[in-house]
Amino acid sequence: MHRYRSHNCAALRKSDVGSTVRLSGWVHRVRDHGGVLFIDLRDHYGVTQVVADPDSAAFRLAETVRGEWVIRIDGDVKARSDDTINPNLPTGEVEIYAREIEVLSAAKELPLPVFGEPEYPEDVRLKYRFLDLRRDTLHQNIIRRTEIISAMRELMGGAGFTEFATPILTASSPEGARDFLVPSRIHQGKFYALPQAPQQYKQLIMASGFDRYFQIAPCFRDEDPRADRLPGEFYQLDLEMSFVEQEDILSTIEPVIRTVFERFADGKPVSQTFRRIVYADAMRKYGSDKPDLRNPIEMEAVTEHFAGSGFKVFANMIAGDPKVEVWAIPAKTGGSRAFCDRMNSWAQGEGQPGLGYIFWRDEDGAVAGAGPLAKNIGPERTEAIRTQLGLEAGDACFFVAGQPGKFAGFAGDARTRVGEELGLVDTDRFELCWIVDYPFYEWNDEEDCLDFSHNPFSMPQGGVEALDGEDPQSILAYQYDMVCNGFEIASGGIRNHIPELMVKAFGLVGFDAKEVEERFGGLYRAFQYGAPPHGGMAAGIDRIVMLLIGAKNLREVTMFPMNQQAQDLLMGAPSEAEPAQLRDLNVRIIPPAKDE
Amino acid sequence: MHRYRSHNCAALRKSDVGSTVRLSGWVHRVRDHGGVLFIDLRDHYGVTQVVADPDSAAFRLAETVRGEWVIRIDGDVKARSDDTINPNLPTGEVEIYAREIEVLSAAKELPLPVFGEPEYPEDVRLKYRFLDLRRDTLHQNIIRRTEIISAMRELMGGAGFTEFATPILTASSPEGARDFLVPSRIHQGKFYALPQAPQQYKQLIMASGFDRYFQIAPCFRDEDPRADRLPGEFYQLDLEMSFVEQEDILSTIEPVIRTVFERFADGKPVSQTFRRIVYADAMRKYGSDKPDLRNPIEMEAVTEHFAGSGFKVFANMIAGDPKVEVWAIPAKTGGSRAFCDRMNSWAQGEGQPGLGYIFWRDEDGAVAGAGPLAKNIGPERTEAIRTQLGLEAGDACFFVAGQPGKFAGFAGDARTRVGEELGLVDTDRFELCWIVDYPFYEWNDEEDCLDFSHNPFSMPQGGVEALDGEDPQSILAYQYDMVCNGFEIASGGIRNHIPELMVKAFGLVGFDAKEVEERFGGLYRAFQYGAPPHGGMAAGIDRIVMLLIGAKNLREVTMFPMNQQAQDLLMGAPSEAEPAQLRDLNVRIIPPAKDE
Repeated sequence: MHRYRSHNCAALRKSDVGSTVRLSGWVHRVRDHGGVLFIDLRDHYGVTQVVADPDSAAFRLAETVRGEWVIRIDGDVKARSDDTINPNLPTGEVEIYAREIEVLSAAKELPLPVFGEPEYPEDVRLKYRFLDLRRDTLHQNIIRRTEIISAMRELMGGAGFTEFATPILTASSPEGARDFLVPSRIHQGKFYALPQAPQQYKQLIMASGFDRYFQIAPCFRDEDPRADRLPGEFYQLDLEMSFVEQEDILSTIEPVIRTVFERFADGKPVSQTFRRIVYADAMRKYGSDKPDLRNPIEMEAVTEHFAGSGFKVFANMIAGDPKVEVWAIPAKTGGSRAFCDRMNSWAQGEGQPGLGYIFWRDEDGAVAGAGPLAKNIGPERTEAIRTQLGLEAGDACFFVAGQPGKFAGFAGDARTRVGEELGLVDTDRFELCWIVDYPFYEWNDEEDCLDFSHNPFSMPQGGVEALDGEDPQSILAYQYDMVCNGFEIASGGIRNHIPELMVKAFGLVGFDAKEVEERFGGLYRAFQYGAPPHGGMAAGIDRIVMLLIGAKNLREVTMFPMNQQAQDLLMGAPSEAEPAQLRDLNVRIIPPAKDE
Repeated sequence: MHRYRSHNCAALRKSDVGSTVRLSGWVHRVRDHGGVLFIDLRDHYGVTQVVADPDSAAFRLAETVRGEWVIRIDGDVKARSDDTINPNLPTGEVEIYAREIEVLSAAKELPLPVFGEPEYPEDVRLKYRFLDLRRDTLHQNIIRRTEIISAMRELMGGAGFTEFATPILTASSPEGARDFLVPSRIHQGKFYALPQAPQQYKQLIMASGFDRYFQIAPCFRDEDPRADRLPGEFYQLDLEMSFVEQEDILSTIEPVIRTVFERFADGKPVSQTFRRIVYADAMRKYGSDKPDLRNPIEMEAVTEHFAGSGFKVFANMIAGDPKVEVWAIPAKTGGSRAFCDRMNSWAQGEGQPGLGYIFWRDEDGAVAGAGPLAKNIGPERTEAIRTQLGLEAGDACFFVAGQPGKFAGFAGDARTRVGEELGLVDTDRFELCWIVDYPFYEWNDEEDCLDFSHNPFSMPQGGVEALDGEDPQSILAYQYDMVCNGFEIASGGIRNHIPELMVKAFGLVGFDAKEVEERFGGLYRAFQYGAPPHGGMAAGIDRIVMLLIGAKNLREVTMFPMNQQAQDLLMGAPSEAEPAQLRDLNVRIIPPAKDE
C-alpha cells in the first residue's frame, strides 16, 4: 500500500464498503459522541469521516490529535446508517473505522481557525496565509481563479493566439505610473525596471512578424495603496494582433470574454452581444465611461425646458453660457417627496449645493408634477419633461446643470445612487459593453497642458490631417474599453505604427523627436523597418475573477497578496538588505533626516 | 473586403484560382525576370508569390518596394505553369497577379538582412531583434518554444496539477545565488527581492492544503555571465506534490517529460524508461552526475590489477593510500598508438601528467596488449584487465589513478572525449535518466566547512538518527536530478517538513535555530501548523527547448534575451534613473572612487 494514501479524502463511496484503505490529511474537526471519536479528515479534494472506537488500537492516539494536525489513518470502510448519511458530502455514505493512526505533522495552537471560517483580522490572516488558504471559501476562490485563467489560455489558443512571455527585467516604461527599479550590479549606477505592462514588447512582437500574441502577463506598478488594486504586481490577459482594424479586435475578443463569463457566471445571464457605446454618449447617458448597464436609467439633456423658464438658477446659467446644459436623471418609482429629499441630502453630503427634482403623482385621475422646480417652471414645461422621459405618476426626475464636462461625474454617481436606492439594478447578471471613440488628448488642468487621455501609443482617428487640425481635444482615438457592471475590465487600442505620426502625436504634448526616440527607442526603431498595422488590448484578470467570484476584496482572489502597506507579512518582505549586497550594487540608503 | 487581407500568406491553393484576393505582409524578396517583377510576400504564416506585370496599374509602385516593406496587395489568383510550381511552398501552385499595391510601412536600409539568414554580429542582431526574429530559423524556434511550453501545461494539467502563479516581488531567497533587489519606496531602506525560484512559495502552497502545484515560473539570479545561462531571468517548469515519496514524483513526471520529448524530438528516439542511477554509481561509471548515456563507455575500477604490479607509479600510490583507486576507461575501436597518444596529449593539455593506456592488437592470431603500461605490468595482468572489460583486439583502455573524489571529474571528461573521438556517441537520440541518492552535505574546501550539497530544504535519508550519526558526509538526501544527453534538465527532492529536523539539518552547517526562523520565517512557521509530507522538482525550460531544437545558444530559443553583459540592447536596459526616482526611493548611487 502507498506510504500515505490509497485514496484521497473525496474518493470513497458506498461501493468501497468492506475495503481497507489508507487516507492522509488534515484533522478538520474532532467530535466526541459518547466516547466514540469522530474525526473529519480533510485534504485538497474533500472530507471523509473517520471513526475511532474506544476498543480500537487507534483510539489512544486519536484522543490526542487536534485541529490541523496532519495524520495518516488506516481503516475499514463501513456504510453509515441511514440516519447518519450526510447528503452534502460526496463521501457522506461511508465512514472509516480507524485501525491505525500516524501523526505526520502536529500543529501548535492555531492563531487562526480553519474550521468554521469566522472573520479574523487581516494581518493575522496574511501572516498565517497558509492557514487562511486552507479555509474552504478562500481555497475554492483560488482554485476558481486558476480555472478562469486556464479557460482564458484555452480560448485564446483556440482563437489562434500564441502565448509569449516577455522580459520582466527591462527598461522603464511610459505607462504613466511609477516603475519599480532594480539596480544593476554589473552596470553600476544603472537600473532595470519591472514592466508596468508589456506594451512595447507586444508591439515589438508584431513588428517581429508574429501575428497574434497573448500572455497572462505579470505587471508591476509602484503605486500608493488603492482599495481596488493590490500593491506591487497584478495580472493582465494581454494580447495584440497584426493587420487588423478596431472591429477585428472587438469581434475576436468579445466571444473569448463572453465564454469565460458564461462558464464561470454560476448561471447568471451574460450579455450575448456587447453594446458598442461611443465615449461621448456614455458620458451623456451614464455620466461615466464605466457604465453599469444593469442600472436601466439613461440620462437625457432637458436644457430647452429650463431655458427662459421660471427656475431662475438654471435659466440664468443657460442664458449666461452657451456650454451650459441641464441633464435629467429619470427615477422610475422614485416619486415620493421623502425619496427625493433623501437624494437631495445625499447630494449635499457629496459637496453639491443640492439636487433639484420633480416628482409626479396622480391628482384626481391626472398626472401632476410636484416639488419646487415644478412650481417654478409651471405645468407645461413640467409635462414636456415628463413626456420626453416617458415618466408616469409615481416616478421622479433629478436635474443637474452646468458645463457637462464638470458635472458629468456627479450626475453619473447620482444615476447610480438612484438606481440602487430604488432597487432598479438587477445584481444577478453580467452586463458587458464596449466604450469606443475615446478622445485622444485631454486638457490637464493641474499642469495646464495637453496630455494623452489614454494610451499614447494609440492611433488617432483621421491620421496626420487630424493632428494638423485646429483642436487637438476634438481628435478621437482608436481606443476602447470593455466594461462590466460598472467596472473597466479591459482596455486597448489600434496602435500608431507610423513613426512620423508618432513624433507628431508626442509633439503636441511637448516631446520633441529626440525624446521620443530616446524614451521609446526600441519601438521607434522598429517602426522604421517595416511595421504592420496592429492593435490589441489588455484585460484585468484580478478584476474579472473578483466579478465572477463575487469577491469584495482582491486579497480574496490572490494566493499570496501583500497588505495595503505593500508588505508581504508571510515572507517578511520588504526587508533590510545585507551591507555586502548594497556594496555589490553600489547603492547607499540615504539616512533619514534627524529632525523628522 | 477586409481592410488588410482576405487570406494570410500561407492560405491560397490551386482551388482558389480565379478569385480576387487581398494579402498583406512583408516584402521577403523582389526579383526582376525580364521586366516582370516577382515579389515574395511573407507573413507569420507563410509566403505567397506576387507578380507585377509591366502592364498592370500596380507596376509603378511595385518597382519602388524594397525588402521588409509592409504592403497590401489586391490581385487575382492564377495557377503557375507546371515548370514554375514550387513544391516546397504550400502556396507553390499559385501566384497572385497584383492589381493594386498599398505601402503600409516602408523600411529604411536594413542593418540586418531577413532574407537568406547569413551570420551577423550578435550586438546588431540584439539591437534589431525585431528583424532577427523575422528570420525563419529564429521565428520557428520561438514558435517551437511556445509549443513546448504549451505541451508542458497541457500534460501537467492532465496529470492533475493546477497552475498557480507565485509572487515576483518577494523576500530574499536562500537558493545560494545572488538576488536582484528592488528598493521599496513606501518602506524606505528596505528591499524586495526577485525570486531565484518559487521554492518557499511552492512548499507553502502544499502547507496551504493544495495537492499538486505547477508553474511555468520566471526565476531571477544576478549571476556573472555564464555561457549556459542567460543573465537575469530564466524559466522553470516548477512543481510540487503532497503526500508523496520520491518514487511518486519520479513516476509522475517521467511520462510528462518523455511525452514532451517524443512530441518535439523530430522522430529521434527517446528513452522509454529513464534509468535510475544512484549518484555514487554515476560518479564511478561516468565520472559525472550528468552522464551522457548516448556514450556507451562505462568506467570500472581495476585497482587490483595494478596493486603490487610493475607499474610503480600506480603501485606505489595504491600501497601508500587505501583510498587510492585506478579506474579504467575502455575505448572500443580505439586500439591504435596514434589515438592513444592523441588522448595522452589531450590530457596533458588539460593539466594532467598524462593518460596511461593499453591497447590490444592481433599478434599471430592471439590478442596482445601493447604500450608502456602493458610492458610494465606484464601479460597476465594485461589480459586480466582485458577480460574484465570485455575488450578485443583493436580496442584500447585508458587509466586514471588517485582518490576518486579528486579525479572523477577528469575521468568523466576523458570518457566523453574518447566516446566523441571514436564516434561511439549516437547524437541522434535523447537518453534520459534519473540520478538519485545525492549526498546531503559536502565539504566546502574553500571555506573549510560543511555545506549543503544541493537543496537545503531536502529531507535527509534516515531522518533525525542520520543527522545525529557520526559522519554527516555519509548522509544521503531524497534528492534527484533528471539528466538528458549530458545535461541536467531537472532537479528536485522530497522536502524536510519537520521543523525540528530542519533546525538540526541547518545546525550542522552553522545556522542556529533563530537564524533558520528568521531567514525562512514563512516556511518555518508553516511547518509548525500541520504540514504534509511533500516534494517536487523544477525543470529548466530553456535547456529542454535548446536540446529539442538543437540550438547551441540560449539566445536562439529566447525571444528578447539580454546579451552576456546583462544588457537589453533593444530596449536600452539597464539605464540611468531620474534623480527624482532615486529620491523617491531614498537611495543614492555611490560615486566611483576617483583614483580608479
